Amino acid sequence: MSWIIRESGFDPERIAHHGNKFMIGNGVLGYRGTLEEFGKKELTATIVAGLYDQVGGKWREPVNAPNGLDTKVYWNGTRLSVFEAGNVAAGDKAVNSVNVGRELDHIRVELVSHEQSLDLRQAVHRRRSVFRTADGAEVAITAERFCSAARTELIVCRFTVESSRDGELTIVTGINGDVWDINGPHLVRMESDVDGAEGGAAWEVVSLSASTQELGLPITVSEAAEVASGGEHEVLREELSVRRRFHLYCRAGEPVVLVKTVAVAAGLEGETADEVRAAAIQWAREAGQLGYDQLLSEHAEYWERKWSASDILVEGDEEAQLALRYSMYQLHIIAPDRSEKVSIPARGLSGQVYKGAVFWDTEMFMLPFFLYTQPEVARNLMMYRVHTLAGAKRKAAEYGYEGAFYAWESQETGDDACTLFNVNDVFTGRPMRTYFRDKQVHISADVAYGIWQVYAFTGDDRLLLDGGAEVAWECAKFFYSYGYFNPRKQRYEILDVTGPDEYHERVNNNAFTNRMVKECLRIALDAMEILKRGNVERYEQLLADSPIQPEHIRDMYERLYVPEPDAQSRLIEQFDRYYTLEDVTLPQLKSLMLHPHEYLGGGNGLATTTQILKQADVVLMLHLFKDDYNSAVKQANWAYYEPRTEHGSSLSACIYALVAADTGSPDWGYPYFMRTATIDLTGDSKQYVGDLYIGGTHPAANGGAWMAAVLGFAGLRYDGDKAVLRPALPSAWQAIEFPVRLGGGSYRIRVSREGVTITAPRDNPAALRFIVGDRELTVAPGHEVHIA
Amino acid sequence: MSWIIRESGFDPERIAHHGNKFMIGNGVLGYRGTLEEFGKKELTATIVAGLYDQVGGKWREPVNAPNGLDTKVYWNGTRLSVFEAGNVAAGDKAVNSVNVGRELDHIRVELVSHEQSLDLRQAVHRRRSVFRTADGAEVAITAERFCSAARTELIVCRFTVESSRDGELTIVTGINGDVWDINGPHLVRMESDVDGAEGGAAWEVVSLSASTQELGLPITVSEAAEVASGGEHEVLREELSVRRRFHLYCRAGEPVVLVKTVAVAAGLEGETADEVRAAAIQWAREAGQLGYDQLLSEHAEYWERKWSASDILVEGDEEAQLALRYSMYQLHIIAPDRSEKVSIPARGLSGQVYKGAVFWDTEMFMLPFFLYTQPEVARNLMMYRVHTLAGAKRKAAEYGYEGAFYAWESQETGDDACTLFNVNDVFTGRPMRTYFRDKQVHISADVAYGIWQVYAFTGDDRLLLDGGAEVAWECAKFFYSYGYFNPRKQRYEILDVTGPDEYHERVNNNAFTNRMVKECLRIALDAMEILKRGNVERYEQLLADSPIQPEHIRDMYERLYVPEPDAQSRLIEQFDRYYTLEDVTLPQLKSLMLHPHEYLGGGNGLATTTQILKQADVVLMLHLFKDDYNSAVKQANWAYYEPRTEHGSSLSACIYALVAADTGSPDWGYPYFMRTATIDLTGDSKQYVGDLYIGGTHPAANGGAWMAAVLGFAGLRYDGDKAVLRPALPSAWQAIEFPVRLGGGSYRIRVSREGVTITAPRDNPAALRFIVGDRELTVAPGHEVHIA
Repeated sequence: MSWIIRESGFDPERIAHHGNKFMIGNGVLGYRGTLEEFGKKELTATIVAGLYDQVGGKWREPVNAPNGLDTKVYWNGTRLSVFEAGNVAAGDKAVNSVNVGRELDHIRVELVSHEQSLDLRQAVHRRRSVFRTADGAEVAITAERFCSAARTELIVCRFTVESSRDGELTIVTGINGDVWDINGPHLVRMESDVDGAEGGAAWEVVSLSASTQELGLPITVSEAAEVASGGEHEVLREELSVRRRFHLYCRAGEPVVLVKTVAVAAGLEGETADEVRAAAIQWAREAGQLGYDQLLSEHAEYWERKWSASDILVEGDEEAQLALRYSMYQLHIIAPDRSEKVSIPARGLSGQVYKGAVFWDTEMFMLPFFLYTQPEVARNLMMYRVHTLAGAKRKAAEYGYEGAFYAWESQETGDDACTLFNVNDVFTGRPMRTYFRDKQVHISADVAYGIWQVYAFTGDDRLLLDGGAEVAWECAKFFYSYGYFNPRKQRYEILDVTGPDEYHERVNNNAFTNRMVKECLRIALDAMEILKRGNVERYEQLLADSPIQPEHIRDMYERLYVPEPDAQSRLIEQFDRYYTLEDVTLPQLKSLMLHPHEYLGGGNGLATTTQILKQADVVLMLHLFKDDYNSAVKQANWAYYEPRTEHGSSLSACIYALVAADTGSPDWGYPYFMRTATIDLTGDSKQYVGDLYIGGTHPAANGGAWMAAVLGFAGLRYDGDKAVLRPALPSAWQAIEFPVRLGGGSYRIRVSREGVTITAPRDNPAALRFIVGDRELTVAPGHEVHIA
Repeated sequence: MSWIIRESGFDPERIAHHGNKFMIGNGVLGYRGTLEEFGKKELTATIVAGLYDQVGGKWREPVNAPNGLDTKVYWNGTRLSVFEAGNVAAGDKAVNSVNVGRELDHIRVELVSHEQSLDLRQAVHRRRSVFRTADGAEVAITAERFCSAARTELIVCRFTVESSRDGELTIVTGINGDVWDINGPHLVRMESDVDGAEGGAAWEVVSLSASTQELGLPITVSEAAEVASGGEHEVLREELSVRRRFHLYCRAGEPVVLVKTVAVAAGLEGETADEVRAAAIQWAREAGQLGYDQLLSEHAEYWERKWSASDILVEGDEEAQLALRYSMYQLHIIAPDRSEKVSIPARGLSGQVYKGAVFWDTEMFMLPFFLYTQPEVARNLMMYRVHTLAGAKRKAAEYGYEGAFYAWESQETGDDACTLFNVNDVFTGRPMRTYFRDKQVHISADVAYGIWQVYAFTGDDRLLLDGGAEVAWECAKFFYSYGYFNPRKQRYEILDVTGPDEYHERVNNNAFTNRMVKECLRIALDAMEILKRGNVERYEQLLADSPIQPEHIRDMYERLYVPEPDAQSRLIEQFDRYYTLEDVTLPQLKSLMLHPHEYLGGGNGLATTTQILKQADVVLMLHLFKDDYNSAVKQANWAYYEPRTEHGSSLSACIYALVAADTGSPDWGYPYFMRTATIDLTGDSKQYVGDLYIGGTHPAANGGAWMAAVLGFAGLRYDGDKAVLRPALPSAWQAIEFPVRLGGGSYRIRVSREGVTITAPRDNPAALRFIVGDRELTVAPGHEVHIA
């Protein structure tokens, strides 16, 4: 049971939410959890990782590919569609009038039942809808689909219709190029094609090809479709679509099965339109020939490996168990496990929200999951930053700085997709100047931090030699040119920044930022030493003619101001003069709101002049640098900042969970963990900021849920040398058990109320040192160790 | 004729404007140009320089003293009042119903004519209103008043009633403590008093005493009143007023004359309530005994001296002549010519607007007028800054800086009256965070600049030795602690400031600010050398234990970045990245306004993301440091910035006039001069910012008008050693002639189309070198020199 996510009944209000909740994907393609009969108004989307387009002066965003699962069903001429049958609550039966084609005859159709579900284990989406038609037939539509993990260009769908009576069945299915866009339309010069076996045989492939507007990149969506029970069909070509109409006579109790193999190909590597089209056609046809069962079986094999590398068992808390699995599912479907050219956008592959851009979310909230379970994906994520270094250097130069200023919102080139105006003022409708792009400089430190994490974790210096050291060095150069020296106080300072708490823009000496910059400087110095040893030529190239040399970075590292805990209160001030801001409570602040979507930050936002923070800021620093601060400091700052935190970001709650666990108060942390782990299940997250729609999936929260469980409650840490376990299970949990990959070996760790068990398979390359509580032990290959 | 300002007719819409326009004052008291029958709704005000109060958390502002000119007139029981007679346009005759006392009988009274005027030469306000009453009598009320320049505690009024028929005349006159307040009420524990000659004889004095709320300072307003033609009177004491009711029988053609001498005393120097009351009573009585003619004559003598030291003759332009005189009048009535404890508030003594606070306006816009005409007043103005140094040091310490950070809005202690929220957002009604107080750091440099101006102009180092050097030094220390060193660019920078263009808050390296800071650093170094020579003990005290020493200031002075003109375009960028802002036209910007009073600056203001400036900023720097920039640079920047200037400040236009004259284009400058010189005559200035009323007089513009005429069109400059004349008369002007005080001597300078004439009286202490065009000459005592 705890592998299935399920919703019964149909509620039009929840279409957008379910589109996110029932997402499928394979890291290359993301397909929203909409129904086959849905169109652009219901936000159907097929997102291709790394494919972006810009129209005019509008925001640059992912391209929504033509929808290859578009399907309409008619029973004796009457359309069967949850949407047109109207609103049915779970178990209810509603009767609505439905239009057939363009005819205006009102024929009544009833939705008897409807269910949408997601099988997390195999990453398969299912829907089943039963209709009662005017002629008294009960017609069940069942569809299941997956984005093939084995063939990343492929979406496979099996569509079944079964009726309690004989009747005429018409299925119109194909590729619909009239898609949902936020800032589109992105695809132009759309052309349809029918390849092979004209008008008849099974492996005829239809396709829809187009180009993006900005760069003219070609894209083709192709479909092979087969109805097992035969019947006639004809091809319908319209301006923005190509579909097949299948006419069948359906006998009572004999299911009609339609299998669709949809291939999506885009010219991301310079392929011509012809090459792209040819590939898409070939892929669809090959897949069609393999058949559904074979395709599903190879797909499921991939997923078995994913889960065996990552699945967590929680004993005693079914809800947490499911939510954690679901969180990992969401990460798996968007993980670029076979590409280092893309990373994970803040809304995954769930649409065009946030411009499909990669934020710091990836390094700070998602990277740990991959690092501990699939380090090769973690490396891919950081290689994406290596590949986008040029964009980061362009951004630094644009602002007059040296080195690399990474994009706040990064797409395929690393140029910043973030605009200067991000939110519209709800009172005037005017775009509001925000400073995400200009001032959230910690992004460059976050990138360097991520690179160092991968290096330290794997002990493998290839990432550094392959460009990682250069990235860290360029980020350090950026900070040197960004920083200032305070002559009076004889220290470097980082001025005019926005920290994680975006409600306070343009502050000085944000503790988190300064600490991250200090870390970045250290990483750059260390990474450059490694580069010097591994590739002295490149090392010398990087320093030749550079006005900034390692001694400058070292000086800044040594004299950089990082706000310290106060000796009495143990509090760390979030930034200079934070304490002078008005100290209101969150309810007080919210009571002043005049509009439900008004942005609390920006120029005149209500929070800007108060101590209310959007999300963990100081507390995030305490998590990242947990060794630098004692428990009393962590507790004091948690207690001070949490009541002042709006948690207006989905990145906030997990950090409070982590630090609560770290200070031995897992039950304090538990609600924050649950809030994080269920965010895409409940759909309760913030949907609007100003008039900006920000819905979609929340991979950073998904990663945060994993962190809270494994790094927080199980208390695991690995520093490249030894693993430390300091468990702190919430009361509800009897045990947690999970696999990890540490230092090249695999381990299965079980933390229960009785003790800790660590199992190492025989083929592990070496033994690993563990510290559990105050005991130190070594776990050799093929051994299982239990500590009470 | 060009000594008289006059308005005919009565228009209730113009009451507030006329209150400003017809102001009288003597530097200690300011009395708004309202009518005797007006009350708080008509914004009557008696402002005492240097007397401030704060109620609760509201803005601290000047105290409006009880109104000693409060007078009501009844003819045969019918009230005669312009206001109650209604709206009469010039020359029109309107008939309105008027209430008598509390009776509801509607008796018709007609306002036949009404005129309000100001005699600039003698600084006397007059009003004459003629009423036709229901019984057919024409009753003329004439009142003239002045704030005695000879006795600064005194307001004198002569009130005359003359009728065409016999009748019963009742005059109720006295002191009304129910006054207009913006953030009041400020006066509490109000008590009335009747001193001497109870109920009968002439020198009975009535008084109203009260205390301020915040500091409990005592204040008393006393009045002696005499009706020459006798008659009965009785004293009316109410809770917030004390008045006398005079009953007379008035014969046709025989004027009834009431003379009132009103004294205002406040405990500004620690006097007790008894001392204050006794003084006020004595002053009013003494003045009453002297009589109106004597009081006027001694007052007029003072004014004759003021005008002989300052009056400008403009030939060929009557309008400019009058406007210039009027501008100087406004400065004379508020000049602290007998006190160094107060300076001139931004709205003079015209009310409580802008908290009665002293801004940079004084140093940068008013000081030159006094420097060239009455250097002793200029010295007083700067001594005010010496006396308020402690407040400036408190402000610096509050923000964590060293030295002296002068108040953006300075009152009697030098603590900053400026709040963090200055304007309410018109869309939400919420207070808007602005950075006037925190970030307009140039104020400290402006103060140092003013001090050096007085020193350089007079050649007298007493101001420096009396505290001026210390002020400059503390300001320099402030800037050293405020500034940062850019390690990459090896220069000091001034970050996060607001320049004169307040629409762009929190910018880096504002050219004006950086240039002023550099000047401040130089002044501090030079002033400290002078202090070392003049008072080595004090010099050493200032440096003892100071972490900032002259070598630090010198290093910053030498390596401080000041934006330079671009080699090609000759433009100076107003601040870092100004050019990246949207380059819209002013009409485009204004077309986006959704509310007529919306503030263009602040958090989301329309101008903030554009190149539109509130007021001269770079161009002001070009004026102040005119020797540093050639004419091509001045022209290029004038041409670039002027179309981008909203002139939303009354301080803006005169600077464009000055730089236009400086670059030989006086006709370009002339409209800006006229706009400046007529600002309080037309009343056309901005009255609201957000929902903040900012009306009142505009002494900075008044000073700017003088600067534009004398320093601009006549082209005069004096550097403490020689005077330079580079005239550039506007086409309309045949000649300009004016007196100045230079180097301890008096000169009369006439610049005409025919040439320049300079006259020096015999009693000048020494000869002075003049450079006129390319000729150099010396003007000896008793000589007149003419250059063709």
